[in-house]
Amino acid sequence: MLPPAIAADDQTLAAAAERVMSRCDRLACCSEEAGAVTRRYLSHPMQEVHHTVGDWMRSAGLRVRVDAAGNLIGRRPGPEGSRVLLLGSHLDSVPNAGRYDGVLGVLAALAVAELLGAAPLPFHLDVIGFSEEEGVRYALPYLGSRAVCGGFDPAWLERCDPSGVSMRQAIEAFGLAPDKIPEAAYQPDEVIGFVEPHLEQGPVLERAGLPVGVVSGIAGQTRMRLRFLGHAQHAGTTPMHGRRDALLGAARMICETQRIGAGADGLRATVGFLRVAPNATNVIPGEVELSLDVRHPEDALRRRAVDTLLELGAEIARELSLGFSVIDHVVQEACRVDPRLTSMLHDACLARGYDAPMLPSGAGHDAAPLSERFPVAMLFLRHPGGVSHHPDERVDVPDVQVALGVLLQFIHLLAESESQ
Amino acid sequence: MLPPAIAADDQTLAAAAERVMSRCDRLACCSEEAGAVTRRYLSHPMQEVHHTVGDWMRSAGLRVRVDAAGNLIGRRPGPEGSRVLLLGSHLDSVPNAGRYDGVLGVLAALAVAELLGAAPLPFHLDVIGFSEEEGVRYALPYLGSRAVCGGFDPAWLERCDPSGVSMRQAIEAFGLAPDKIPEAAYQPDEVIGFVEPHLEQGPVLERAGLPVGVVSGIAGQTRMRLRFLGHAQHAGTTPMHGRRDALLGAARMICETQRIGAGADGLRATVGFLRVAPNATNVIPGEVELSLDVRHPEDALRRRAVDTLLELGAEIARELSLGFSVIDHVVQEACRVDPRLTSMLHDACLARGYDAPMLPSGAGHDAAPLSERFPVAMLFLRHPGGVSHHPDERVDVPDVQVALGVLLQFIHLLAESESQ
Repeated sequence: MLPPAIAADDQTLAAAAERVMSRCDRLACCSEEAGAVTRRYLSHPMQEVHHTVGDWMRSAGLRVRVDAAGNLIGRRPGPEGSRVLLLGSHLDSVPNAGRYDGVLGVLAALAVAELLGAAPLPFHLDVIGFSEEEGVRYALPYLGSRAVCGGFDPAWLERCDPSGVSMRQAIEAFGLAPDKIPEAAYQPDEVIGFVEPHLEQGPVLERAGLPVGVVSGIAGQTRMRLRFLGHAQHAGTTPMHGRRDALLGAARMICETQRIGAGADGLRATVGFLRVAPNATNVIPGEVELSLDVRHPEDALRRRAVDTLLELGAEIARELSLGFSVIDHVVQEACRVDPRLTSMLHDACLARGYDAPMLPSGAGHDAAPLSERFPVAMLFLRHPGGVSHHPDERVDVPDVQVALGVLLQFIHLLAESESQ
Repeated sequence: MLPPAIAADDQTLAAAAERVMSRCDRLACCSEEAGAVTRRYLSHPMQEVHHTVGDWMRSAGLRVRVDAAGNLIGRRPGPEGSRVLLLGSHLDSVPNAGRYDGVLGVLAALAVAELLGAAPLPFHLDVIGFSEEEGVRYALPYLGSRAVCGGFDPAWLERCDPSGVSMRQAIEAFGLAPDKIPEAAYQPDEVIGFVEPHLEQGPVLERAGLPVGVVSGIAGQTRMRLRFLGHAQHAGTTPMHGRRDALLGAARMICETQRIGAGADGLRATVGFLRVAPNATNVIPGEVELSLDVRHPEDALRRRAVDTLLELGAEIARELSLGFSVIDHVVQEACRVDPRLTSMLHDACLARGYDAPMLPSGAGHDAAPLSERFPVAMLFLRHPGGVSHHPDERVDVPDVQVALGVLLQFIHLLAESESQ
């Protein structure tokens, strides 16, 4: 049994879950587009999110700050000199997203802080809303979590978004000081770990009929930006033979990406982004940039797939007399979760009556970069329909209630462990 | 020999050609992008073009007006009640264009008006700069020339550009009255014809070593906007089998378009435009729009190619569980040039010492829609390198000089013919 100071009855948990859901609805209105959820790194609606969530945090007694990378952090202070547990997820979204990916984890963390009330804990609890996980605006994921784990490369500040705004300019326009990003890093000896609640974004829990699961590891990921360079010519006068059509190169590459992806179990290979220039009906495309996203739980298999795809790209380019180059390349190796925190999370599920399955994550999460520096663990919530990065994304209130109970139980177990 | 009032010596023609070239350079600065030539329908720099060319027209004694579709017209008046010869081309451009496509024809026409001086002619001469030929902003070509020949469909006014600005709004923002577009139409009985000087945008004249050629006909053209509809899902968690990837559908369609295009002599089939949604690295594309541009001098062959491509699109969509639809479809049938004006243009070349070849045009031109209502003829200028719709587009001054001499000679022959 939980000591009374940390326990919460079902009715209280149900009310907290309802509040998490209505807050997700509220934040879905903070968007770059009316009628859709689009919230890129440091976009205007992120200011609104910070004001709103910051107010909720302050009402819960948390000490609120925004670090130089734009992460929103609310601290529930523990004893002076104690270590900190980070709990949360990210606040940004892909274009035309659902309302739960990332946001649900932040608001669940906040709900936990609210449910804890005045219960004394032997550590600080930092509820964290990372500023950037999806990698949309600068084609670089995990900007927020990389700053928190000291892995933010200052060279990134000079990158420009598709409108030509550099990351440095965007950070300054948001009212922050880019040169202070190193100060956003936590030191390993001050951090107990990072625990991230998140939608599964897959079908495993739904098929098993279970509300929660514990993550056994996160697939490694290679993200690339590739470029085919041809020659922009008149679509009406240039014969088909002898064209240097950059879009034809990209099209063949997309077909090969599907073929290679489908060729190995567990592999995911996707072209999700394309930029065509000049992108006019009557001009043969002279230049195409495309993204490549390759993931697998085994790093070696992922690397082999990437190598094969790059060879195929070069071959296509030779056949079509195009230039071919890799203009950007970000690797996130497969992530190992912390055995102690992970088994504690599993124990917390058991204590709440759920024998939660251990399952791998195909999606990347802030926990992945953080795992390079801190112990991490992840709790997955059942994802009805499994549809993510889409307005149809759903989560059921009873599952959120279960997750809150599990997280509260986890805090209890951790408090016991840290007090010993 | 020309009567002295219409004749111009080589030195005068050379100076006029130089002026045409420097004016092309001047107009290349009127662009939506610094360092590149991009001038879409009713874009801001088009205002600057109208001011600049309008001033040149007025200095040449022309009466300047802008019609409700945004066409710039400078009239050199003939006797009251006489008919009009239209001479010119278009002032808009594709993104990152060269400096001569369209503009050269307008400025050559203006140079002819200047060279004519006070010579009496038995007709009006309207130097015309069409507002829209390329079809970039509203995915509809020939907006300006369609208005002039009475073929402007008022329903087009409600179309939106990629920024969501309707054509009606754009016309109003330019200071014009969209509901007056019907008044922009010339009546067939008042028009002698339309003559368009233009770069060849192809290799025939260069290979033949000749400065000018006369167009024997313009290839018919089908322009379509197609849409593949799939399901936007998470790139990391969605297995390869069972994806509904709209971009994969588009990629296969692009490969088929190349294959079909290369399968028949003289056929051109191009995908030049692509819009991917949501267009993020880590999301499987849920929707892709792509353009299809198919041309051939024989209408029946072109129609068969289009039908085949649409069948292939539907087949690809079935295989990949995608939706597939034609969301826009514009047809320009192959254009017949007017025998009288065309042979007069050929005679003018001969009189200037050039046995100009007759050659078909693979590119569409304002002359194509105008030919449905008025007699048309076209003069092609040699195109060094044949590179068009690209900053490397070139034309040589001596060829412009030859073209000006031919056009002046043509006016002389037409004046003789119209006086009889």
